[in-house]
Amino acid sequence: MESSIDIIEKVKLKKPIFIEGLPGVGNVGRVVAGYLISELNAKKFAEMYSPYFLPLVLLQEDSVIHPLKCEFYYVRGEKNDLVILTGDSQSSDPQGHYEFAQKVIKFVKDLGVRDVITIGGFAEGRLVQKPRVIGAVNDKELIKKYSTYGVLFQPSAIGSIVGASGLLIAEAKRNGMNGLCLLGETVGYPLITDPKAAEAVLMVLIKILDIKMDLTKIDKAVKEMEEKLKKTEEIHRKLQELSEKKDTESLKYIG
Amino acid sequence: MESSIDIIEKVKLKKPIFIEGLPGVGNVGRVVAGYLISELNAKKFAEMYSPYFLPLVLLQEDSVIHPLKCEFYYVRGEKNDLVILTGDSQSSDPQGHYEFAQKVIKFVKDLGVRDVITIGGFAEGRLVQKPRVIGAVNDKELIKKYSTYGVLFQPSAIGSIVGASGLLIAEAKRNGMNGLCLLGETVGYPLITDPKAAEAVLMVLIKILDIKMDLTKIDKAVKEMEEKLKKTEEIHRKLQELSEKKDTESLKYIG
Amino acid sequence: MESSIDIIEKVKLKKPIFIEGLPGVGNVGRVVAGYLISELNAKKFAEMYSPYFLPLVLLQEDSVIHPLKCEFYYVRGEKNDLVILTGDSQSSDPQGHYEFAQKVIKFVKDLGVRDVITIGGFAEGRLVQKPRVIGAVNDKELIKKYSTYGVLFQPSAIGSIVGASGLLIAEAKRNGMNGLCLLGETVGYPLITDPKAAEAVLMVLIKILDIKMDLTKIDKAVKEMEEKLKKTEEIHRKLQELSEKKDTESLKYIG
Amino acid sequence: MESSIDIIEKVKLKKPIFIEGLPGVGNVGRVVAGYLISELNAKKFAEMYSPYFLPLVLLQEDSVIHPLKCEFYYVRGEKNDLVILTGDSQSSDPQGHYEFAQKVIKFVKDLGVRDVITIGGFAEGRLVQKPRVIGAVNDKELIKKYSTYGVLFQPSAIGSIVGASGLLIAEAKRNGMNGLCLLGETVGYPLITDPKAAEAVLMVLIKILDIKMDLTKIDKAVKEMEEKLKKTEEIHRKLQELSEKKDTESLKYIG
Repeated sequence: MESSIDIIEKVKLKKPIFIEGLPGVGNVGRVVAGYLISELNAKKFAEMYSPYFLPLVLLQEDSVIHPLKCEFYYVRGEKNDLVILTGDSQSSDPQGHYEFAQKVIKFVKDLGVRDVITIGGFAEGRLVQKPRVIGAVNDKELIKKYSTYGVLFQPSAIGSIVGASGLLIAEAKRNGMNGLCLLGETVGYPLITDPKAAEAVLMVLIKILDIKMDLTKIDKAVKEMEEKLKKTEEIHRKLQELSEKKDTESLKYIG
Repeated sequence: MESSIDIIEKVKLKKPIFIEGLPGVGNVGRVVAGYLISELNAKKFAEMYSPYFLPLVLLQEDSVIHPLKCEFYYVRGEKNDLVILTGDSQSSDPQGHYEFAQKVIKFVKDLGVRDVITIGGFAEGRLVQKPRVIGAVNDKELIKKYSTYGVLFQPSAIGSIVGASGLLIAEAKRNGMNGLCLLGETVGYPLITDPKAAEAVLMVLIKILDIKMDLTKIDKAVKEMEEKLKKTEEIHRKLQELSEKKDTESLKYIG
Repeated sequence: MESSIDIIEKVKLKKPIFIEGLPGVGNVGRVVAGYLISELNAKKFAEMYSPYFLPLVLLQEDSVIHPLKCEFYYVRGEKNDLVILTGDSQSSDPQGHYEFAQKVIKFVKDLGVRDVITIGGFAEGRLVQKPRVIGAVNDKELIKKYSTYGVLFQPSAIGSIVGASGLLIAEAKRNGMNGLCLLGETVGYPLITDPKAAEAVLMVLIKILDIKMDLTKIDKAVKEMEEKLKKTEEIHRKLQELSEKKDTESLKYIG
Repeated sequence: MESSIDIIEKVKLKKPIFIEGLPGVGNVGRVVAGYLISELNAKKFAEMYSPYFLPLVLLQEDSVIHPLKCEFYYVRGEKNDLVILTGDSQSSDPQGHYEFAQKVIKFVKDLGVRDVITIGGFAEGRLVQKPRVIGAVNDKELIKKYSTYGVLFQPSAIGSIVGASGLLIAEAKRNGMNGLCLLGETVGYPLITDPKAAEAVLMVLIKILDIKMDLTKIDKAVKEMEEKLKKTEEIHRKLQELSEKKDTESLKYIG
């Protein structure tokens, strides 16, 4: 059985840039994607389901069940349209991560995407006063381009990127697409959403995308997302525990 | 390898409603389905096998082996025929749960089903004198309809529904079908079958289905089922332990 | 990826009866199959490989590697030819057990097999002076037939049969074939091969098959098999540990 | 989902011999393959990706991500061209090991390979002053041939070969190819790369391949590889832990 994507609206996009923000350390990716979607009034056009998610549905306040899924949104832009992927969960086993990444890249490639930007948190293991944004690319040539936007390219402390954020730009490379991963520095406690790290990434991201956006509402936005974040943070924590059990303790989960 | 359904009798059904009752907390789903099948004289018309069940066969008193399987029954009704799914086991891993739900929904959709009702127990963690029936739906519109039958729509305490009961109505939604999950409150000890919770669900269910049924024989029925329940409760307990190991401790198994 | 069968010799068989004896408790199945093969001068005609076996090769005394595999042998008989399956290993996960059983039954069905006899040990948990042979069938009608051969049909103590021996006769049933499982009583310590239990099963088996065979050489045969048994008993023990971890402690492994 | 091979250059090879050296105990295989590639100026012509690798990417010093992969190189030779396989990782589960071996053997068979040589370390569990090279073959006939090159054929201490090195020559056998596994004796601590064991294997290997090579630079080469080895040794250690958990403690990992 494979992951599948349900199309809600067929879209034709102009030089689209793809941005991924899924749950992970500090929920940086998810908050960034959620804020973009809300501030830019992005429109959902596809949903993705995977047999590699945990086998459960969330129960919402209104007694309506919510299956674990990821969602694709689009925004019209001046030079580039945006495709944003966010969602409830990452995969629950190694194969699932790879399958997910392949399906997503195939899907956005067919939409015309040539540039992939993935968002995650980098677990510093200590409180970070002024979080920096650490970058990783899938092609050396890209470093010069993105350095000008305040992305720090000093990966000395990072050995690996686990999960979707890393695998997506690796798969992008195999498909001839550019890939950038932005990691906001955060303390890295699994259950603490870090709006500051998300804000730091957003500041870099709006420069890269050349768009304007009010960043003062992040704290408020995080509070509004909180109920949902709490539920899926629990899922994320479980996946992390699973992944720690499977991949052993010393692998840092960055996502 | 995939789950497969062996057809015993080809049936043509009139506006069929699908009811699922598989093993789970308090065996609520299974007892409800079993009682419906016995009281309504339902007829088996298909069997479902899955490579995701535990790799064993049960040995019955008469020395005949019994492979783990699920069974589809049908009952003719005035307005609606019923399709009832019960069985020995749920899946033993995440992917299996998803594959099972997809196969089942595809099968009953082809039979003409538009309404899916799944039955489970809700583990309260304490003895419940007068069990209530908590509902979850796959579409907001359905709440009003079912509230009139005594279903309680206050999910505050429930974070998620694990296993078939939740995934089936999620998959139903993706296929344009209505879905209701009925959870009878029960103490939630894995090995204790709870006829009272089952009775509470049955009282709601016969109102929804607009059928008549003698509910006084549940205790006797449970006693008759006991030998078989004991064997499969053991299996269910193992699956629950497996699921706890895999999905971590804090996920409540509702099924 | 699936299990696959390499055909060594194309055979046409006369009303063949299929006998399975794989590693398991007391190695009863394997010793029975091995003794049949050696005493009846059975000829290997196919080998079976599975990605669900442990990912290793055995290294033999002569420095030649031995991949884990199962082997099909045939023997010409007066009324019935025999097909015998033995091998190094059972599967290492639930799905593998089911896939293995399906592949095997499909293969022997195509050879014309209508009767399936699987051999295993039944772990009594105590020393057994005079091991009995306990039977399980896939159809009630078969009990009368096999009772006359000294098979005991009193399964009260056995709740389930884990692994190939049970799943094969279940799958046989789905394919319209007769199935009998013979379980020799044994103490059930994983690492102790029990020639006495094997002898008890063989005594029943030669009556069922209506063949003659010298049973006095079993002890000697077991000694000759010992080196190989030791290596694969280790594998079997690992699979059992795996299965215990996965399926929880209280499931008895009978196989 | 399956492993896949991306072709970089289409090559036509002359009687190619296939040599595999992946991470494993003492990193013997990997160092041997790496040294061959560097000293013989081998050229990469294909990359292999697998969903059975750990779901992460490595982050290199230059901020460029490096997905886990294996690489095929070729070298032109006088009598025989060489195909060399090395890489970052072995599989993370049993099925993955088998699938990987099948894919690789199919690929090199299509290139015209008839001889397969796999390299690994043999964990002695004690410091080894003068490491010997222990051999295993997939056909008895090969022992005489390789004994003349200083390969020791006394497998008494080795019960099994876990992972790619064993499965590749087993799969080679099924495809009618010759297979030799060379195991350099090493202490067997997971995190210690052993250049001496690698040198011992190389001395045997250059005799078998009838090529000339300067072996004095191994220590320097290992130092140069160190940064990369450190990162993937960590991965290898994790896989080993995983494999120990899954396959139980007493299976020695040789790879």
